Amino acid sequence: MAMRSHYCGLVTEALLGETVTLSGWVNRRRDHGGVIFIDLRDREGYVQVVCDPDRAEMFATAEGVRNEFCVQVKGLVRARPAGTTNDKLKSGQIEVLCHELNVLNASVTPPFQIDDENLSETVRLTHRVLDLRRPYMQKNLMLRYKVSMEVRKFLDANGFVDIETPMLTKSTPEGARDYLVPSRVHDGQFFALPQSPQLFKQLLMVAGFDRYYQITKCFRDEDLRADRQPEFTQIDIETSFMDEQDIRDMFQGMIKNVFQTALGVDLGDFPVMTYQEAARLYGSDKPDLRVKLEFTELTDVMADVDFKVFSAPATTPGGRVVALRVPGGAAISRGEIDGYTEFVKIYGAKGLAWIKVNEVAKGREGLQSPIVKNLHDAALAEIVKRTGAQDGDLIFFGADKEKIVNDAIGALRIKVGHSEFGKASGLFEDRWAPLWVVDFPMFEHDEENDRWVAVHHPFTAPKDGHEDLMVTDPGKCIAKAYDMVLNGWEMGGGSVRIHRAEVQKKVFDALKITPEDAQAKFGFLLDALQYGAPPHGGLAFGLDRIVTLMTGAESIRDVIAFPKTQRAQCLLTQAPSPVDEKQLRELHIRLRNPDAIKA
Amino acid sequence: MAMRSHYCGLVTEALLGETVTLSGWVNRRRDHGGVIFIDLRDREGYVQVVCDPDRAEMFATAEGVRNEFCVQVKGLVRARPAGTTNDKLKSGQIEVLCHELNVLNASVTPPFQIDDENLSETVRLTHRVLDLRRPYMQKNLMLRYKVSMEVRKFLDANGFVDIETPMLTKSTPEGARDYLVPSRVHDGQFFALPQSPQLFKQLLMVAGFDRYYQITKCFRDEDLRADRQPEFTQIDIETSFMDEQDIRDMFQGMIKNVFQTALGVDLGDFPVMTYQEAARLYGSDKPDLRVKLEFTELTDVMADVDFKVFSAPATTPGGRVVALRVPGGAAISRGEIDGYTEFVKIYGAKGLAWIKVNEVAKGREGLQSPIVKNLHDAALAEIVKRTGAQDGDLIFFGADKEKIVNDAIGALRIKVGHSEFGKASGLFEDRWAPLWVVDFPMFEHDEENDRWVAVHHPFTAPKDGHEDLMVTDPGKCIAKAYDMVLNGWEMGGGSVRIHRAEVQKKVFDALKITPEDAQAKFGFLLDALQYGAPPHGGLAFGLDRIVTLMTGAESIRDVIAFPKTQRAQCLLTQAPSPVDEKQLRELHIRLRNPDAIKA
Repeated sequence: MAMRSHYCGLVTEALLGETVTLSGWVNRRRDHGGVIFIDLRDREGYVQVVCDPDRAEMFATAEGVRNEFCVQVKGLVRARPAGTTNDKLKSGQIEVLCHELNVLNASVTPPFQIDDENLSETVRLTHRVLDLRRPYMQKNLMLRYKVSMEVRKFLDANGFVDIETPMLTKSTPEGARDYLVPSRVHDGQFFALPQSPQLFKQLLMVAGFDRYYQITKCFRDEDLRADRQPEFTQIDIETSFMDEQDIRDMFQGMIKNVFQTALGVDLGDFPVMTYQEAARLYGSDKPDLRVKLEFTELTDVMADVDFKVFSAPATTPGGRVVALRVPGGAAISRGEIDGYTEFVKIYGAKGLAWIKVNEVAKGREGLQSPIVKNLHDAALAEIVKRTGAQDGDLIFFGADKEKIVNDAIGALRIKVGHSEFGKASGLFEDRWAPLWVVDFPMFEHDEENDRWVAVHHPFTAPKDGHEDLMVTDPGKCIAKAYDMVLNGWEMGGGSVRIHRAEVQKKVFDALKITPEDAQAKFGFLLDALQYGAPPHGGLAFGLDRIVTLMTGAESIRDVIAFPKTQRAQCLLTQAPSPVDEKQLRELHIRLRNPDAIKA
Repeated sequence: MAMRSHYCGLVTEALLGETVTLSGWVNRRRDHGGVIFIDLRDREGYVQVVCDPDRAEMFATAEGVRNEFCVQVKGLVRARPAGTTNDKLKSGQIEVLCHELNVLNASVTPPFQIDDENLSETVRLTHRVLDLRRPYMQKNLMLRYKVSMEVRKFLDANGFVDIETPMLTKSTPEGARDYLVPSRVHDGQFFALPQSPQLFKQLLMVAGFDRYYQITKCFRDEDLRADRQPEFTQIDIETSFMDEQDIRDMFQGMIKNVFQTALGVDLGDFPVMTYQEAARLYGSDKPDLRVKLEFTELTDVMADVDFKVFSAPATTPGGRVVALRVPGGAAISRGEIDGYTEFVKIYGAKGLAWIKVNEVAKGREGLQSPIVKNLHDAALAEIVKRTGAQDGDLIFFGADKEKIVNDAIGALRIKVGHSEFGKASGLFEDRWAPLWVVDFPMFEHDEENDRWVAVHHPFTAPKDGHEDLMVTDPGKCIAKAYDMVLNGWEMGGGSVRIHRAEVQKKVFDALKITPEDAQAKFGFLLDALQYGAPPHGGLAFGLDRIVTLMTGAESIRDVIAFPKTQRAQCLLTQAPSPVDEKQLRELHIRLRNPDAIKA
């Protein structure tokens, strides 16, 4: 390669005495004792270039270069003088004595210094190209590539075949909102961008491809949160002739392999927890097991107390009362407790009851709290007994509809565990904490519309023997569904699918989807199931999330080259944008509010 | 794996005497002498299963199975009796004596036999899932996967990094028509699906990622031809610090490697031909070098003949007259010649002149043609001399505007070469014929709008020293652009890009794009070029086309799992389709012709 013999960051003492050609960017230029030092940067790192005044032409060029100039250097690799080595750099033992310096392209002064770590997200996304030059972003995207390539290698070795499914597909107004694409050829009709390749991958199993994968973009037009983007990348997998255990074993192996090869981390064995157990202990289907706090069930204990806040949910169907014991939590200040009280309200809790355990041996007298007076002795004793509270602990309480208790106290558990107090008190274990959550319910009841909806999706198979429950008692019907959770994030999830048309029809019945509707929306799947569809199942992983977890980034935007803002905009290209009237005409659509874009 | 120990197609004599568990589809069931034979099929091939009546329960099951039932077989691998082996199958030396047979899923009678090779495309696309079960489609998609994986391995080994670029991006109404996606959050605004990641990959070079690739979907809303789909897959590549020769060398290596590993084919060295030479000899920028016919230039010869059909284009700027000598072509019948005359009209030719060369030695008397009388002796002699015509040859003529001559006689050249006559006469060489076409012009003149347009795209760099020609004589300006051609198909193409903002501005000037327009559409690129953009370039390959060429399929639809029809429809899912009024309201759009979808 005429323009480069080595990457800057990879010039080491192995090349001492050799002449190298480097191309990269001026990270810093320093004048020091009549000599110019250039820190030259490329994607592999930095190298120090020394420009002596004895080569006049080269030195004059060196005097002219500024930060972010793109330059080519030819020079001699030599040892750095004693005392000036830098052990943090691969190239830290050497420097390159510059013989020839060519400016490949000048740069105007950048709006910020590339190694500035205190940039606002708006600045970063507006000047994304310069933001991407930062070693932090380079490292993140290189790791992302490594992860996806390791995934591909693993799947390839296990006989999985990457098959592309359509991006222009059919709108099915279930679940999230679709992105639509007007058809020019078919007046009044629309494609939808896929929310996932779910149905196509099932069709590929029916077609006999046996093992499928795809690392592909999926689209959901929903309001955004920190870990959501309008388009996101899914590692999408489906297999025939494997049961739930086979599938979990294989893909636990895949994720372990990726963490090992990309990060050098051994994730160990993944515990397996039922959905029910996760809800009971952590109020969550994606518990962060690094936090060493658990719920204590108190619903049965509070039925007869003379305190409506507890007794009402304890005696109402669908209500729940729990305690969250915080060892050493008596040290938490009233101010902090007030903060937590506000926090749980986000999740619908009306307040946050608590007891400080000053001295267990003193019984009622040893407990400090506004609510103690409302609870009879037996209840107080049972609280202390079940929670295992010790002197100096704090006990929080949640009492409400089960969902509110789970959400609010589940979030509180995380908040306390991750707090400075939690970390100082050993309530937070700094480790990788993966697990499987299994045995999800098939359906949950949508109170608002008084109907059952699929927890996973309507193609998920019920547990063997649970088929009839779909008709008789949908709430008790357990699915062959599983999620992989890491540090409180859902990394992936999937299920064994229904492979018999008659079972699929029962699910549609349970969901009150009429046969006509089912045929209109999913007819091609129902048709396919009739032709000897094989037993099959699969799962999908969120690549953005996995890499975010691996890098420790605060947002998935830090592992995506050109992300959208929370307002679903690209600040770099200014997309979306108005389009020509001619384009709209060709697509047979018009704007409802033509004035909106003039504003 | 409990459900399978081996793939059907991979059970060989190496497993003689072993018990295997197989899962697959009943390809055929035959009753023969009281024994039932099942050809069991999976993605790896077929195996013969023998069901003896001595196991009554199993035999009863075997009697019930029909074609396309999905079944599981446990049985003993044994040698086939002498005389019943099948050397065409990997499993052809053995059969599996069935001990246990489980129907995993029954099948209704399929609409066609899976090994039927005479299905209409409508039937195939409507029942795509069953069509995909056919070994032909299985083989095509498995080869497609192998190609993409080999490409990834090659690029990975050469330091290229897969970085995802956005699917929801900005509409730039240049070139082809965009697919638009209405924004819900931003009233009246639209995303566009990418026609290619061109600008983003250039930005990644400016960001310092050095070597980028992506195998990604691109979208063009154009009327479809046999080798076009609304969404197609591009192997998209960009690199910094490599010049044109470096780039061509590397990616010639990649394609050679893929053909070698996936097909076992050595493509040899690729000839390099200039655009000008290709136009001169073949009238095409993607010549099919398997056809051993060449144009002979006659424009200068025909200036003074008394035959307007030839002399007018010969004396008009932008006109061209050529001959296409067909060795042995005197054997072509008048009827066939009439057919060719109709054929060239598709390309705008007004007719097709020809001369049969009966006897060169006889001069004018030895030439048979309606046009001979219109040509003077010197012209006739020069035709024979330049074409090197021999007794028994046929000479076709094209005379018109250069583009029409090139298109019409270029197409005729292919048509004759691929004809039965051409193949029988050695005018067609059955081999792989790759080449590079280089030195494309920067601009071509758009007569209709009287302006220059970019031949490649407006980010392509001019040849060194040609920068000023962009202003003084755009038609003479040559680009650093290159296409890779195989057997007359463009497999890929690319260019060195402009990396200096001032050169980019000159191109926009030449294209009559105002600075304001340039800023509005490509401001983010112009901005990025200011910050020390590196020299860079790249190319993109059409994956669909490469695999189509490799498989010899007639249409790219045969190498895509779920393609659209030529009317841009998915016959399987019935996309596009009407959507709910609520969806349109949320997107701030309405239909122009609400009645269209009721029709």
